Amino acid sequence: MSMNDSPTLQVRIKLRPGFHMGPGKANLLEGIARTGSIAAAGRDMGMSYRRAWSLIEAMNAAFRAPVVSTSRGGSEGGGARLTETGAQVLKIYRDVQRRAEQATAADCGELAALMPENPGET
Amino acid sequence: MSMNDSPTLQVRIKLRPGFHMGPGKANLLEGIARTGSIAAAGRDMGMSYRRAWSLIEAMNAAFRAPVVSTSRGGSEGGGARLTETGAQVLKIYRDVQRRAEQATAADCGELAALMPENPGET
Repeated sequence: MSMNDSPTLQVRIKLRPGFHMGPGKANLLEGIARTGSIAAAGRDMGMSYRRAWSLIEAMNAAFRAPVVSTSRGGSEGGGARLTETGAQVLKIYRDVQRRAEQATAADCGELAALMPENPGET
Repeated sequence: MSMNDSPTLQVRIKLRPGFHMGPGKANLLEGIARTGSIAAAGRDMGMSYRRAWSLIEAMNAAFRAPVVSTSRGGSEGGGARLTETGAQVLKIYRDVQRRAEQATAADCGELAALMPENPGET
């Protein structure tokens, strides 16, 4: 992010005590859809396989149906793909993110205007 | 949060590499405005004084002007109040939160509908 970038908004949806959908889980689902692999999706995010799998287990347990289905075989423990539920969860999360960004762009600009033009490197 | 509660949305505004405004900093500012004390505001959030102070320092450094001003004396290291900048930051953050919630209520409802009616306790 350069200092000319506009602010970015992240959303975290608390769906139940102890369970939320945030950018980590959404990016992981997106990575699995793209790579067909939990390990590869996690690696792209700098996340251990163990951590990636624990996020998927949390989603699989939280929703009516699993969000990811896996198959055995292959060099990294088998392939993975989003289920219909997983694809829906990801789509809705992205809709939430986009709508929230659009609705708050002016406010976020106001907040950015309260910062100095030339920040020191921190 | 009971299982009848609707989903809640938290927003995190990345304003600069390494600096964001999220619910923790906003709630801390609100607590300081309410209690007049950094220690009391932190305590209400289950946050150490050290942690509360580090969040305030991060905000004081990030914005054009400090967000909190402190005075010496008193049993807990002096009083604290929001500056004009601090009050503006808090107000804008709350505006962002409210607008984001309004813009995404329907989507968040769709996401909640993908969960079982009677979740196990987790």
